[in-house]
Amino acid sequence: MKALVFDVYGTLFDVGSLVDVCQAIMPEPEAFVASWRAKQLEYTFWHSLMGQYEDFQQITAEALRYTLKRYHLTIPEEGQRRLLEAWSNLQPYPEVRMALGRLKRYQRVILSNGSPVMLETLLNNTGLQTEFDAVLSVDAVKIYKPAPQAYGLALQHLRTTREEIGFLSANGFDVVGAKAFGFTVYWVNRTGAVMDELGIAPDAVVRSLDEVATLLQEKSGRVTEGGSCF
Amino acid sequence: MKALVFDVYGTLFDVGSLVDVCQAIMPEPEAFVASWRAKQLEYTFWHSLMGQYEDFQQITAEALRYTLKRYHLTIPEEGQRRLLEAWSNLQPYPEVRMALGRLKRYQRVILSNGSPVMLETLLNNTGLQTEFDAVLSVDAVKIYKPAPQAYGLALQHLRTTREEIGFLSANGFDVVGAKAFGFTVYWVNRTGAVMDELGIAPDAVVRSLDEVATLLQEKSGRVTEGGSCF
Repeated sequence: MKALVFDVYGTLFDVGSLVDVCQAIMPEPEAFVASWRAKQLEYTFWHSLMGQYEDFQQITAEALRYTLKRYHLTIPEEGQRRLLEAWSNLQPYPEVRMALGRLKRYQRVILSNGSPVMLETLLNNTGLQTEFDAVLSVDAVKIYKPAPQAYGLALQHLRTTREEIGFLSANGFDVVGAKAFGFTVYWVNRTGAVMDELGIAPDAVVRSLDEVATLLQEKSGRVTEGGSCF
Repeated sequence: MKALVFDVYGTLFDVGSLVDVCQAIMPEPEAFVASWRAKQLEYTFWHSLMGQYEDFQQITAEALRYTLKRYHLTIPEEGQRRLLEAWSNLQPYPEVRMALGRLKRYQRVILSNGSPVMLETLLNNTGLQTEFDAVLSVDAVKIYKPAPQAYGLALQHLRTTREEIGFLSANGFDVVGAKAFGFTVYWVNRTGAVMDELGIAPDAVVRSLDEVATLLQEKSGRVTEGGSCF
């Protein structure tokens, strides 16, 4: 493995942490956040297929407007702005900071649907920006994952072979998209979700980023030992 | 209006009628069918964006395998085959047959995600095939709605202007896709669903196909009356 590529929303950062902001202003914050997130992703697919790209900030706002209507919620503009800004203050999953430290020897980059501004703010707010060599956004190619053009951004940046790039994502569409593109894919399945059935399986299923670090340590350990035998 | 283009699943035919087949073999047939349908659509988006088209029969089977796992159901192959075949025996919505009769003066074609075989069997089984001048499947362009190539099939077939084509669909992605393409779009919203928020609105929202027939009659009546004034 030469480099690691990380998805952001749901992989490094817990979208569920939006619930904290929602619960003060609505009765069903968990269902609302799940619905908002599902619609946000659905809109990335629709916009991409229609060939009418809008950035992730815009799509997140569209999905918010839809979800508010669906839940019969009227929230003043100021409140809506606060909900959108909460995407820049998501909590990283508990093990992320330490696990990234354990993966220091690899070139580490981000490849996300997020707009450049959203990603920059989120990484700055959580102090994780120093962990990454580059932050790549699909905004550069104006089409969302799982389009091959999106994964091509990482390949172009890293200048190595596809299978030497380890790709980590918690999102089903991203796992199949990255694997179809030819990356070595780790599905970060924290919740014990069911694997998708497109006939495209990840190379490994892990429960956390820590497990990836352990897997890679074992692997490089084996390679070193093997090497010392000759 | 020169011609009418109809979506199939959820618009002419009730996907909910799959519940009849499911309820004998599982405890939560409604939730299962809703989940199967949602996954089926999601897979059309993923396959299309990945540039790895599979036909709708194949995608429906993939979505079934996923949904069975998700609901912890083990159903023998014969039972799974019966579930897939049920897509060829969906019930048309109650008003569809009569409403299509009222719309006879227009050229009427189908434009569907369904594979040619699925569509042929469904229309033959329900005796609705004689109502349509043509049955167009996205299989001809190997990409699913809402990609413009899919809507292009109808335009190419009908050889009229985009806005002279009335497009009827119950599905949100299809409504925005067809409208973005330039058709005159009727959103058949039987359930009082919330409108999507991509900044693309249909030309009319109706509760049933009957309402479209009435709208078009009124319109052509007005045009005739208007004409007689001069």
